[in-house]
Amino acid sequence: PPAAPVLQPKTGEPVAPVEAPKVADQAMVELGKKLFFDPRLSKSGFISCNSCHNLSMGGSDNLKSSIGHKWKQGPINSPTVLNSSMNLAQFWDGRAKDLKEQAGGPIANPGEMGFTHDLAVTVLQSIPAYVDEFKKVFQADTIDIDKVTTAIAAFEETLVTPNARFDKWLRGDDAAITKEELAGYELFKSSGCTACHNGVALGGNSFQKMGAVEPYKTKNPASGRSAVTKDDADRFKFKVPTLRNVELTYPYFHDAGAATLSKAVEVMGQIQLGKTFTVEENANIVAFLKSLTGDQPKFELPQLPPSSDTTPLPQPFGK
Amino acid sequence: PPAAPVLQPKTGEPVAPVEAPKVADQAMVELGKKLFFDPRLSKSGFISCNSCHNLSMGGSDNLKSSIGHKWKQGPINSPTVLNSSMNLAQFWDGRAKDLKEQAGGPIANPGEMGFTHDLAVTVLQSIPAYVDEFKKVFQADTIDIDKVTTAIAAFEETLVTPNARFDKWLRGDDAAITKEELAGYELFKSSGCTACHNGVALGGNSFQKMGAVEPYKTKNPASGRSAVTKDDADRFKFKVPTLRNVELTYPYFHDAGAATLSKAVEVMGQIQLGKTFTVEENANIVAFLKSLTGDQPKFELPQLPPSSDTTPLPQPFGK
Ligand code: HEC
Ligand code: HEC
Ligand code: HEC
Ligand code: HEC
Ligand SMILES: [Ca+2]
Ligand SMILES: [Ca+2]
Ligand SMILES: [Ca+2]
Ligand SMILES: [Mg+2]
Repeated sequence: PPAAPVLQPKTGEPVAPVEAPKVADQAMVELGKKLFFDPRLSKSGFISCNSCHNLSMGGSDNLKSSIGHKWKQGPINSPTVLNSSMNLAQFWDGRAKDLKEQAGGPIANPGEMGFTHDLAVTVLQSIPAYVDEFKKVFQADTIDIDKVTTAIAAFEETLVTPNARFDKWLRGDDAAITKEELAGYELFKSSGCTACHNGVALGGNSFQKMGAVEPYKTKNPASGRSAVTKDDADRFKFKVPTLRNVELTYPYFHDAGAATLSKAVEVMGQIQLGKTFTVEENANIVAFLKSLTGDQPKFELPQLPPSSDTTPLPQPFGK
Repeated sequence: PPAAPVLQPKTGEPVAPVEAPKVADQAMVELGKKLFFDPRLSKSGFISCNSCHNLSMGGSDNLKSSIGHKWKQGPINSPTVLNSSMNLAQFWDGRAKDLKEQAGGPIANPGEMGFTHDLAVTVLQSIPAYVDEFKKVFQADTIDIDKVTTAIAAFEETLVTPNARFDKWLRGDDAAITKEELAGYELFKSSGCTACHNGVALGGNSFQKMGAVEPYKTKNPASGRSAVTKDDADRFKFKVPTLRNVELTYPYFHDAGAATLSKAVEVMGQIQLGKTFTVEENANIVAFLKSLTGDQPKFELPQLPPSSDTTPLPQPFGK
């Protein structure tokens, strides 16, 4: 049989392929996966991390703003958890330094899971199979919030999405993307998009002004990075979102101001670069962006250990 | 090597083992699975069948009453979808004759998914990968609610749970259950529980008075089977729930009046049979009931096809 053709990886590109995750501690990941899917970490017993970062739908909820405890409307669009381990910091304004620090937030946020860390830990501690699993993973008899967030973060580190068609092209498979997608990528580079959307994640590695060239109009009150740095120069800077799997993470921008990718590309061209794309150019860039959809997390639906007779009851209604 | 011992199946028992499901049309099942997990069948884009029949938690939500559209409190405890194909009819009062008839209900129920059949179909019809998949499965170009409920029901037919330890015992593996569990089963039979909880599902095959011997006190206004038959003799008759996986489907009874299995067994003894069990007897029956937990549905988390630019937007807030 003829030898398999040797692929010539592209060199000098501003984008690099996603590597499959290396899992250091599979038992820890399995525990974190259960916790990610467990609505008992919320006051109502109804909302889990997966409610707003649905791993059947690209790791987000595809809503303009999330639905939290008691149907409270969230303040900002829910970003994907896919490839979020690559971010320089977590949240649109980067206020959490890493996934572990982030994971404590939503449990105790009144508008998200509406619970407290103490109560969440009390619930877990009342579930014999969780106690056993934490013991196996952490060699410790008691559960605490630090262990909970460590396990969730370990699971999230596995949520990377290799093998996008664009990555196959980067690795030298010229047939992996179409002519239109390639034209879109060339335009993406030549227009200057890669100034901000670069690296493995095509984003996630800097905070940038939303409206670098022309102001962005929104009714959303989020002030961006300045909320963290208290530096007025950082007003309206947001973490540049990854463009990996962006086909799946509509609607777009922190305020969900763009319902479609086409609209997001149009707005980016205008307000970040002062460029107006033709219909064909816009379509090519959109086509390129859709070639960035990678393998989605692939695992069996987790089975959660049942509560015990002493597990505090969920409180979905009333105060 | 010694020949494997020949197992002697138990004969003459009022309970029979669960058979693994036979799948006639795998493509149909895969489509139904996606629909079961798809929150776009709800007005908010947030609530799917799996929200209230969580297959990570025994096919129910483990709440006293469900949380529906806009956090509306449901009227009755959510029964498990596991083994529900074995039921003589669906719902506590049996008002749907089968799974297909049932599946149309929640989508259009204002307190559940809050949508309409027409809008749900319009959403699906706007998603190219769904159109292709319905075409492949039904050899038809257009989606309608009949096809949607047919596919969901086909998926639900696969949600049976074989290989409970008790079933292994029924099949002749004497070591599969403990002495206490066996004692519990003997008492379950001799006390008369099997008058109502019998067959493969230990329930699901008749409507029976809640409070056969002594009245059941509840504030829940559900009138039971009489709501369907308009026959006063059927007042407060409910479909006998399956006891398969009952370890996972707390809280118990249509009004969730019993938080624990121990309490449910105590109440059943008293009001259905006029019996008061000792602490040990109660514990043995509970142990027996926990031996009825079978293999939970085992499949990869489904990946949902993305919406298109023409997909109507979810309406979680406002009117
Ligand atoms: C009620 C909806 C909701 C729930 C529940 C929720 N999140 Fe989030 N999540 C959001 C929103 C909205 C943001 C963006 C907030 C911001 O940037 O200010 C976010 C941000 C994040 C981020 C940062 C991603 C990035 O690129 O900056 C991560 C990681 C994350 N959530 C993980 C989790 C985990 C883990 C849980 C469960 C412990 C969880 N979320 C529960 C809505 C939710
Ligand atoms: C000066 C920096 C910068 C440049 C240049 C830039 N972007 Fe962005 N991009 C951002 C920031 C910051 C955001 C998030 C803004 C927000 O949500 O408020 C963003 C968001 C996006 C989004 C939405 C992602 C999501 O998940 O919400 C898309 C799509 C996008 N950019 C594509 C492009 C394209 C295509 C170009 C070139 C035409 C481009 N960007 C140029 C900084 C930049
Ligand atoms: C908001 C919560 C909620 C949602 C969403 C929901 N259900 Fe239900 N489901 C319930 C409740 C509560 C009942 C019991 C109602 C009754 O008996 O009157 C029920 C009953 C059922 C039953 C009957 C089981 C039995 O033993 O009688 C089946 C089957 C079922 N649902 C399947 C589904 C499917 C399929 C979907 C999605 C199309 C769905 N449910 C969506 C809460 C929900
Ligand atoms: C006369 C018929 C009848 C007899 C006898 C009976 N049950 Fe029941 N059982 C029912 C009915 C009907 C329900 C549902 C009642 C309701 O929810 O209002 C039920 C519910 C239950 C439940 C709760 C299931 C769930 O998912 O909510 C358990 C557990 C149970 N029975 C166990 C037993 C045991 C143990 C015995 C014997 C001590 C017994 N039953 C005897 C008819 C009966
Ligand atoms: Ca990192
Ligand atoms: Ca988004
Ligand atoms: Ca129940
Ligand atoms: Mg890290």
